Amino acid sequence: MKRQLFELLGKDDRRFSPYCWRTRFALAHKGLEAEYIPCTFGEKSKFAFSGQDKVPVLKDGETSVHDSWSIACYLEDKYPDRPSLFGGAVGRAEARFFNVYVDRELQGALAPLIILDIFNSTDPADRAYFRETREKRFGAKLEDVQAQREQRRPALQKALAPLSAVLAEQPFFCGESPAYADYIVLGSFQLARGVSPLKLLEPNDPLHAWRARMMELFGGLANSTSSYPV
Amino acid sequence: MKRQLFELLGKDDRRFSPYCWRTRFALAHKGLEAEYIPCTFGEKSKFAFSGQDKVPVLKDGETSVHDSWSIACYLEDKYPDRPSLFGGAVGRAEARFFNVYVDRELQGALAPLIILDIFNSTDPADRAYFRETREKRFGAKLEDVQAQREQRRPALQKALAPLSAVLAEQPFFCGESPAYADYIVLGSFQLARGVSPLKLLEPNDPLHAWRARMMELFGGLANSTSSYPV
Repeated sequence: MKRQLFELLGKDDRRFSPYCWRTRFALAHKGLEAEYIPCTFGEKSKFAFSGQDKVPVLKDGETSVHDSWSIACYLEDKYPDRPSLFGGAVGRAEARFFNVYVDRELQGALAPLIILDIFNSTDPADRAYFRETREKRFGAKLEDVQAQREQRRPALQKALAPLSAVLAEQPFFCGESPAYADYIVLGSFQLARGVSPLKLLEPNDPLHAWRARMMELFGGLANSTSSYPV
Repeated sequence: MKRQLFELLGKDDRRFSPYCWRTRFALAHKGLEAEYIPCTFGEKSKFAFSGQDKVPVLKDGETSVHDSWSIACYLEDKYPDRPSLFGGAVGRAEARFFNVYVDRELQGALAPLIILDIFNSTDPADRAYFRETREKRFGAKLEDVQAQREQRRPALQKALAPLSAVLAEQPFFCGESPAYADYIVLGSFQLARGVSPLKLLEPNDPLHAWRARMMELFGGLANSTSSYPV
């Protein structure tokens, strides 16, 4: 049975789930092929077998795994002879801090800047659902949230600052070559460029050159779907 | 020639440098003995041989290393057969994010809450120097900075939140047992309890139980100098 990755699909072939990007890169890092099964928000029934309602979901033979972190751990344990995503037990444990930090701090600071752009990139059939759930989360209309974009930039800069500081010292978050912590961070930039022309990084920011290096990986995997130039 | 660690000394045998605590724990993790050479701010001449003016400084035979991160890397490379501080190249690279995050975000949020307590814990001969340099940094009198303590607590909680979230999932930042990333975080708590009775953590915070586990390590190394109970 072919390996399958169920991932989020927007309009015009856009993929803006940062979590699905983490899994795409994790699979590529392991050199594992998978059939991508794009699912709009309205197509959750496609992966109902997983017993929950969020992508990414990986189906690997008889095994189903959901949640990008769990999938990364599954791939690492199931395919130990392939290139390591974590470089050992300590690296795996430390990568969890990246996972938590990016989920909470970076995503939390980035999403409001582009929330209307995300809305406009969803499948038209998903928009009522998306607007209702996100406006409830933000307690405001999507248009009003994104209109505060420039006032919210300092919060994004604050969330990016420790990441930039690390890359002033080393080429990748995982050292001389990229691994899972790099994919965690990249997912947020892939979200942004999947939906918005907004420039997030100044050219002199170490993250700028890092992102360019990341976009070259695996035959240009980062550019395999519709996205804005950076 | 005996191994020597030059570290910061306050009044009443207090040690409040978070960076020196990182190095103390790194040495203990490696099972390496060192003679501690306590230095007040006024005694920088003791380690002038290092060519700079900050502790910690490690003198290991003919080698002198300063800066806690550089010392940790030195110990890892010089004593590869001892227990690893990083668990490999990826773990070392990822630990740098902890180093940056704690230096910038956690220390930046913690220091203002206890800055007058730190002042009162310095050697009396150091106080004019300490007050002048820190009041310049904060742009305010130390008394006025610390008086804003309760208003500044949310910033500390924000800096601690991603760390707590990690420890909700695993016992140590480095996994099933502690390593250097744990010592990086511990240093800030050692600073706080070295100078202040201020309670930083609620008992139900995963950091609370983690700190208790850390305080048991290496025969109670965390309690080897004067400090407040937590």
